Amino acid sequence: MARVIENGKVLYPITVQDTATLQILMSAFADDQALELTRTTGLAHFYSRSRKALWRKGDTSGHRIYVSQVVSDCDQDSFLYLARPEGPVCHLGTTSCFAETPTAINPLAKLQSYVEQSVIHPRPESYTMSLLQGDLERLVKKIGEEAIEVITAAYAPQEQQQSALIWESVDLLYHLTVVWARFGITLDALMTEIVRRHQPNPSSESEP
Amino acid sequence: MARVIENGKVLYPITVQDTATLQILMSAFADDQALELTRTTGLAHFYSRSRKALWRKGDTSGHRIYVSQVVSDCDQDSFLYLARPEGPVCHLGTTSCFAETPTAINPLAKLQSYVEQSVIHPRPESYTMSLLQGDLERLVKKIGEEAIEVITAAYAPQEQQQSALIWESVDLLYHLTVVWARFGITLDALMTEIVRRHQPNPSSESEP
Repeated sequence: MARVIENGKVLYPITVQDTATLQILMSAFADDQALELTRTTGLAHFYSRSRKALWRKGDTSGHRIYVSQVVSDCDQDSFLYLARPEGPVCHLGTTSCFAETPTAINPLAKLQSYVEQSVIHPRPESYTMSLLQGDLERLVKKIGEEAIEVITAAYAPQEQQQSALIWESVDLLYHLTVVWARFGITLDALMTEIVRRHQPNPSSESEP
Repeated sequence: MARVIENGKVLYPITVQDTATLQILMSAFADDQALELTRTTGLAHFYSRSRKALWRKGDTSGHRIYVSQVVSDCDQDSFLYLARPEGPVCHLGTTSCFAETPTAINPLAKLQSYVEQSVIHPRPESYTMSLLQGDLERLVKKIGEEAIEVITAAYAPQEQQQSALIWESVDLLYHLTVVWARFGITLDALMTEIVRRHQPNPSSESEP
């Protein structure tokens, strides 16, 4: 049982999760009206217990939260807003109201944010920018090189195999991320394709 | 303000997130004692409002939750348990108390669970098993082949580029996942390496 009754009002705990980074952005409460408005407008609404009023995120700060899905828990009294934020979610100016937890983020999103930072704050000597804007040939050659380095790491002496494979896999993932950025491929599109293939089918298993 | 005062007790909303899949597993409330016990024992403790008592997850079901970090929000009155569950978290027997939301999961974890399913429920004709247990040469050759297919997709006619790159990238990610499984490399280890490289350094940018 998660619902809270306050001044005759039924309130539900809400957790907001970023659909791309999978980071938890904030937690708050909503009443039935806030849930309904979130579902119909696609903008995150909550109920402010201190102000005793409906609250649409971003009305003051300008930083709206776009909610693609409102997910219920098993008791139907606690909800998850799957969402993309327009800017910093916290009033302190940070992405999330929760303290930074470096590993609790989709690793591909972490690489993607690295690539995006290179675009937002370009520097003349930026390696990432040279791959994004230079000859395509140079970028795709790197995919080949990094794949070969993963292969040779698999043949490294046993005591070095794991660390070599981790190192080279991250190199390959980073260069793949640059390819995706160069061709406008989003993580959502990749995730959708992974989920589409990942349909359990007990009668046959094809290459996923 | 997220804390709730009930029968003179201060309660905080808690969200539990799986550190590997990044899936939200459940939400509940904790009092100061439950928070303290979670921090000191590494096992998820909550406060049951219906039973008005401290509650250690798993005491009845056997499905404990191992908490690696208790993360505070900006007001210090709502918390995130970063954790790994021992079994289904929900009393309905499902992984999460929240309804299945296929894309709100780390895509590499999704691929990993696909590979794990092949190991748990092996079938003679399983492609994944043949890569995991067959000649290493066959698996690493696939890494090379899939990398080349990503490269050729980048040179596909413009209207096919995105879909070809998504398709081939997922193939490559899947085969990388099999390599990681074969060599016992965890997503945590990969994420840790990505985060380690992803340290903003305004004076220089090396290859991440």
